[in-house]
Amino acid sequence: MDLSKLHHTEKAYEHLRAEYRELYPSHVEEVTDPLDPLTFHRKYVSQNRPLLIKNAVKHWPALTKWNHDYFREKIGSTEITVTVTPNGYADAICNGRFVMPEERTMTMNGFLDIMDEDVSQRMEKGVFYIQKQNSNLKDEFSTLLKDVDVDIPWGTKAFGCEPDAVNFWMGDEKAITSMHRDHYENLYVVVRGEKHFILLPPTDLPYIPYESHPSANYVYSGDGSCSIVDSKDKEKVSWIAIDPLNPDIQLYPQYKKARPIQVTVKAGEMLYLPALWFHHVRQSQGCIAVNYWYDMVFDIKWAYYQFLQQLSDPTS
Amino acid sequence: MDLSKLHHTEKAYEHLRAEYRELYPSHVEEVTDPLDPLTFHRKYVSQNRPLLIKNAVKHWPALTKWNHDYFREKIGSTEITVTVTPNGYADAICNGRFVMPEERTMTMNGFLDIMDEDVSQRMEKGVFYIQKQNSNLKDEFSTLLKDVDVDIPWGTKAFGCEPDAVNFWMGDEKAITSMHRDHYENLYVVVRGEKHFILLPPTDLPYIPYESHPSANYVYSGDGSCSIVDSKDKEKVSWIAIDPLNPDIQLYPQYKKARPIQVTVKAGEMLYLPALWFHHVRQSQGCIAVNYWYDMVFDIKWAYYQFLQQLSDPTS
Repeated sequence: MDLSKLHHTEKAYEHLRAEYRELYPSHVEEVTDPLDPLTFHRKYVSQNRPLLIKNAVKHWPALTKWNHDYFREKIGSTEITVTVTPNGYADAICNGRFVMPEERTMTMNGFLDIMDEDVSQRMEKGVFYIQKQNSNLKDEFSTLLKDVDVDIPWGTKAFGCEPDAVNFWMGDEKAITSMHRDHYENLYVVVRGEKHFILLPPTDLPYIPYESHPSANYVYSGDGSCSIVDSKDKEKVSWIAIDPLNPDIQLYPQYKKARPIQVTVKAGEMLYLPALWFHHVRQSQGCIAVNYWYDMVFDIKWAYYQFLQQLSDPTS
Repeated sequence: MDLSKLHHTEKAYEHLRAEYRELYPSHVEEVTDPLDPLTFHRKYVSQNRPLLIKNAVKHWPALTKWNHDYFREKIGSTEITVTVTPNGYADAICNGRFVMPEERTMTMNGFLDIMDEDVSQRMEKGVFYIQKQNSNLKDEFSTLLKDVDVDIPWGTKAFGCEPDAVNFWMGDEKAITSMHRDHYENLYVVVRGEKHFILLPPTDLPYIPYESHPSANYVYSGDGSCSIVDSKDKEKVSWIAIDPLNPDIQLYPQYKKARPIQVTVKAGEMLYLPALWFHHVRQSQGCIAVNYWYDMVFDIKWAYYQFLQQLSDPTS
């Protein structure tokens, strides 16, 4: 048994961290207009490098049309699925549980009424967020499809496939998407308001604490009170334990070595969020967004990432 | 000090090995004709996946023109650089030294005379190989350039740059390129005869033994005898110690875990050999080839590879 290997592993981690920082900037690169598919693939997708595209969708009618009046007129009576939480955190760790939101069906008018209330009124009811990531734009919000594109043509060419899902997002400024990563290439367009992303590259995995907790759901009762109810299967979920807005460095000192990148995506802009990048998302009140999930390629980058995961987390 | 980490590292290596094999085939994929640049980039370059292109250069006059008579006529009196070794191994470990070939200047006619001799006559003189990898096709062999292309157009589009070097290769069937890897994307075209490659993916690095030895050169004296002469600087060179044609598994048992892939490239065919793939090359007598080196992108794959190198080899 070669004890020198222990020290050696730490040295290798430091090397990866340094090498990555030498190769990748500490900000999200920007372009004014979409790139041709090959350049986009070569410079960003292949390199797993985020990109902000400023004039991504200037031809979309949604940019001028989408507001509360238009939604009330076109889809006011449509039944939609909304998540509700008492604190804005859906799919996040709370009191030793991995807590998922309540999913509630309401009309779009009902949802917009809440969005129109002032913050104290809203918070009494909970934090509402349209975020059903099952291609809901093609389903519950299909009337709105004509105001956008069913895919991002240069993205579809670059990725070599149609989007796997097209999602519509709208919600409260208190709604927060906790830090996580997806097995998807993501083209994320803000239509109104703005989204604030905190990003961490896949190579920061060794510095991101995961914890396993039993899953639970927020459940609202008739009187409007909310409680946390354990899932029946009691299956544990492994999730990121740290809040990048207020990281507990005492508890997770390794996180100091991570390099969070902040980027704000404004109306009309698109973020290319590469597969496996960790992301935490906040937004302005009533922010509206549309995102396209394209299948990621499971290649050598994935194999290396899995290797890093095995090495970093003995419980994985 | 967490001793369980030691076992854990081995487990992670096994995981990487298994994952890689699940994602990549144990043979080189083939296509009949060149792909469009984006498809080539998405499916092969970005994924670091080798590819054999059967009808790669069917328009090249070289395919029909290049033979000894033509070379004698066009460049017979041209001075060219040839490497000479007693055993065919240039840049390889021999008797505890990293031994480089003698570089000799001769006319093309002189070189062809040797190629035309029978094997016993040739071997008395040594093993001759034109393999000067400094874009020699554009330099010493520039007269031949009109018979090929100065770049591979779909490759140049995919890689987003002109080739960094275009090399001409011709030599003895005894000449062997020992296992190594390059920091280049490689488009390798066989014009006459055939080349036999043994390939190993970058993820097999943990199973490939490296050794450091002082550098030396083969030096021929006037009477035709050859000796190994140490380099003046005595600098040590780290090189792969194993011969994949006859691997010493007793000495390097880990090599059993590597997965060598054999591929033969015939006249008119092209191998896309991705950056960082280990390769060992043999050839038929008088085989002629042209290769294009394109700059590799130093991205997350490179950072991960360096990480693996740090982890695998405490001396690196």
